This record gives sequence, C-alpha cells and structure tokens, in this order.
Amino acid sequence: MKLGIYGYGNLGRGAEAAIRQNGDAELVGVFTRRPPETVKSETGTPVFRAEDVFSYEKEIDVLLLCGGSATDLPVLSPLLAERFNLVDSFDTHAKIPEHFAKVDSAARRGGKTALISGGWDPGLFSLARLYAEAVLPRGAGYTFWGRGVSQGHSDAIRRIPGVLDARQYTVPVPEAVRAAENGESPSLSPRQTHRRECFVAVKEGADREAIREAIVTMPHYFAGYDTSVTFVSEKELKENHAGLPHGGRVIRTGATGAREEHRAAVMFSLALDSNPEFTALVLVSLARAVGRIRRRGEVGCKTVFDIAPADLSPLSAEELRERYL
Amino acid sequence: MKLGIYGYGNLGRGAEAAIRQNGDAELVGVFTRRPPETVKSETGTPVFRAEDVFSYEKEIDVLLLCGGSATDLPVLSPLLAERFNLVDSFDTHAKIPEHFAKVDSAARRGGKTALISGGWDPGLFSLARLYAEAVLPRGAGYTFWGRGVSQGHSDAIRRIPGVLDARQYTVPVPEAVRAAENGESPSLSPRQTHRRECFVAVKEGADREAIREAIVTMPHYFAGYDTSVTFVSEKELKENHAGLPHGGRVIRTGATGAREEHRAAVMFSLALDSNPEFTALVLVSLARAVGRIRRRGEVGCKTVFDIAPADLSPLSAEELRERYL
Repeated sequence: MKLGIYGYGNLGRGAEAAIRQNGDAELVGVFTRRPPETVKSETGTPVFRAEDVFSYEKEIDVLLLCGGSATDLPVLSPLLAERFNLVDSFDTHAKIPEHFAKVDSAARRGGKTALISGGWDPGLFSLARLYAEAVLPRGAGYTFWGRGVSQGHSDAIRRIPGVLDARQYTVPVPEAVRAAENGESPSLSPRQTHRRECFVAVKEGADREAIREAIVTMPHYFAGYDTSVTFVSEKELKENHAGLPHGGRVIRTGATGAREEHRAAVMFSLALDSNPEFTALVLVSLARAVGRIRRRGEVGCKTVFDIAPADLSPLSAEELRERYL
Repeated sequence: MKLGIYGYGNLGRGAEAAIRQNGDAELVGVFTRRPPETVKSETGTPVFRAEDVFSYEKEIDVLLLCGGSATDLPVLSPLLAERFNLVDSFDTHAKIPEHFAKVDSAARRGGKTALISGGWDPGLFSLARLYAEAVLPRGAGYTFWGRGVSQGHSDAIRRIPGVLDARQYTVPVPEAVRAAENGESPSLSPRQTHRRECFVAVKEGADREAIREAIVTMPHYFAGYDTSVTFVSEKELKENHAGLPHGGRVIRTGATGAREEHRAAVMFSLALDSNPEFTALVLVSLARAVGRIRRRGEVGCKTVFDIAPADLSPLSAEELRERYL
C-alpha cells in the first residue's frame, strides 16, 4: 500500500517511522504547511507543500492525516475525504457525530473510504470497551489514562501569562484502579480517578503563586482534580520531561452464571514510551484496512468498530488462523 | 435473536445463563443426548432430544454448539452447519484448518453462516494477539494461562488407574510474566512459562507414588513442566476445588520510533470465576454477529477475525460511537 503523510509534527514523524516497520507499506511523501525546503524528513522521504497533495491523488492509496483535532482535522478531513482514502485520529469526543457526518458525505461524494478517530483512545481503548461490554453485559466499565503526558493540558498551561513552557502528566489514582479491578463497581468522580502533575517553567519575576492558582482553578482542565504544580527551569523541563509517554487501561468487571454468582474481569492496557509513535502505528494498520475495504467497493466513513480485525493484518486469513487463533 | 443450545454440560448451562443476560436474545430450547425427562434446565427452558433439533430449523436463528472439541464438535459442527447458522468453541488448534474447511463447505451448501473457535482462547485472546501484532509489528508476543482449571489435564489424570477424581490448575510463572511485561523478549520453554498443580483423590490402597510418577511423566500433558501432585480426599476435592476458574493474559512488547528507540507494551487479560460461563457469554455475542452477517447475505465459515466489532454489540452504530469511541 502506498501511503502519504499530511502534517509533519510528532504524529507525522511517528507515521514515517511506523511505515518503515510495515513491510507492505510504502511512503510516497510528506505534505506540510511549512516551506518544504525548511523541513528535513527523518528518512529522506520527499517533502511536499500541503496544497500540492491533490497532484498525488493517483499515487496515494491512503492518506494519513496527522494534524490536530482542535483546528486541523475538522477542516482537513472533510476537505480531503472527497479525493483520498484517509485515516485520521480525531479525538474531540463531543464533536465526533458532526465530524463523522461531514467526512461520510465527502467520502461518498468522491467514492472514497475514510476512517476517523483512529489511534489508541479513541481507537484500541474504544475497541476494548466495546468487546468487554459485549461479552459482559452486566457489569461496570472504567478507563484510566496515564501516567502520561496530556498535550491538551500542557498547552492550556502554556497559555497562562508568565509561563514559558509546561508539561502535564495525567496520573491514575491507584486506589481507584484497584477498586475497579476488584469488581467493586465503584462510582468515581474525576478527582477520585486521576491526579494531575504539572511541571512549569516561568519567566523571570513571574508571580508563581498567581500561576499556580490559575492552573489549579482552570475550568474543565484542572478544577475538580487534585493538581500538583512544580516550578522547574526550562533546562530541567527539556532534560527530564522531553518525552511523550502515555498509556492506561480499560477495565470491565461483571457477573456470570444463572444467579450472577460469579465474577469476571476483562482488562486491556497500554504502556507507551512514545504516544505519537504508537498512535501512528495504529493509524498505519487502519490504513491497511481502509485500502482493503475500498478495494472491496465500500465507501463512506468508518470507525474502528466497523473494521474486521483480519483487515488490520498483512497476513492472509489462513496465516491468521494458523498463527493467532 | 432466537437461539438454541445444543449440548447441556457446563458450557450449555453457561449459555443458558448468558442468554438471560442479553435482552435481545431468546432461548428456544436446549437439545441434549440424554433422555430429556432426566434433564432439568436451570431456568425452565424446554429440553428436547438432540435428534429433534432439525424440527426447530425455522425457529432458531443461531445454534450454540456446546459440545467438546475432542469428539463432539468435529462431527456436530459440519453436520449441523448445513441446516443452522451456528457458533462453536472448537479449540483443538492443530485441527482448525480441517474443521474450518468442513464447516465452511457444509455452511455454503446450506446457505448458512457458521463461526468456529469462539470463546476466549481461541477467541478474545486470538483477537488480542492479532491486534497487538498489527500495531506492533516489531516485537515479541506471549500468552500466559491461569491460574485456572484445565479440563483436558484434569481428564488425563482421571484416566490413570487408581484415580477417583482430579483437578489440574495451570499456573503462570511470575518471573516469566514479568520478563514478558518488561519487554525483555525472553525465549521461554514451556517449563519456564507455566507450572502444573494437581489435586488428586485416589482409591483406597492405590499406589500413590506410581500415580504421581504416571502424572509427572505423562507426555504432552505434564512431561516438560514442573508439576506438583497433592493427594486429597474426594470430599476435599468437591469442597475446595469444585469451581472452574480460569483466565490469563496476552502480552506483546515492541519497539517504536525511527531508530526503534522507544518501547511499547500491549496487554489483554481475563480473570474468570467460571470459565464455561464466560465462554458462553462470548458465544452469545458471536451468535449476534453471525445472525447479522447471515441477514446481510454472507454465508460460509467465519472466525473472530472476520467479525467487525460493531456486530457483537446490541447497540446501533450511532450509540457505539457515542458511548465507546
């Protein structure tokens, strides 16, 4: 399969590495909104101007959209889905129905296939939630994230006046994880499930107490959580917090038996040194499925729920039954 | 969906309970090879003679085959697949290609849809292996089972002269699990991955040392493993080892990044008080998918790899995107 990468930040670079790990994938090029001559690809892949992507329509089987969910994907996915089979990682949960509808109609107009909200959450975690509830209809389900860097929360801190740079770690509360695993079916508030650890570098002379206050009271992001704020130098931030680790777990416990007298627990977990690199690997496996689905004549917008697992793998049906069943 | 249960042992009784937990499922009846008047169903479900199943062809959307893999399913699944959409839990790995081919041709002859090798291993664990390898092509994968009762190993002990009853627990070796989780990509022998614990009740005057020797040296089952044999009374066996707990975990660790400099770990695990009850819940969700696939006009033999996750759930595509994505 011939793939293109549209957007060349952390996720785009992850996609470049991911494509190299998949023997059946070939990278046509990287498309960026920056001047191509200022961008050096990791592996010598050709770098093109974003607006030239339409000239490569025939060369690209599936386009990996590696932009952000806040402003890029709501515009790009519907725009490109008419001309390209594509995969995106749209993760603004409340806006998925709207995004799905727009991408679906664009893809149908162009006779293309698109998959939205790929990655690990939404993505593999969504699958884990669906499978677990399908096989344990009587039960309770939980998702815990971290310990890992939340880009959205880090960005929110960076927008506070006086802040130079910041890194926010989302940390699951061990007691809540244990209660969920033990099938205690707890009803948990946000504060009870996750803590937030912030490492913040500030300008000289900045009012640290005011910044701390602005963080811990920030609606949606930090209010309602136990949040720790640690002020560090820019140097320390770069040295000790440069990575983008993440992960988490999906847990469902439920009852089985005629009198629901037995317990069952299903758990799926991820531990990732690099969130964008792993997300990109998921996108590449989804691109494989999108290409196959399109070749079978199915068009429109899909999600991970619509993808038969076999379509994610380069192996044949016989090999899959032999090796994994 | 209207379901029938064919075979009424532990798995069949689990299926009866599982159907009650699924609001969209209705149980037409239980089919047994024993005289129906000697069988009392858990929930007052009608009990029919196995050979009468063909009279219920029109009433049953999907038949759950709840027989054993050793002798029942190799005969029953191909026999019934021509007349019924069905789900089985065939788990003799080496014979899956043959079983698949027979069921496939029977189902195609009759215009029916069958799914073989459903449950958790093969089944959910197979899916976990496939997903994990699709998203982490460079890595190493492991499956650990237990701590749980292996019916096959328990039966093997029961066939030794002088043995009244027995229970064998398969126990994962913690050091091996840790090494796999830590991404050390160990190459592990059977002995290094699992221990076997046997609880055995013997006839009065039986030669315990000879029985112990017969167990620990039994080819395929116990030779090559560290096996403990504990002699207990029949009463103790019934009181303390009556349950059928099981579970285990699928672990894959791999490398991400342009220089494969980062680690990623994917894990899926199950902890089950009752293996057959949980297996049956998986079969019911697969039956839902089989019914839908057939209504869309697809016939022949399928495995879990061919089932789009959405088809396992009673929820609509919109509800799934809203609740799980």
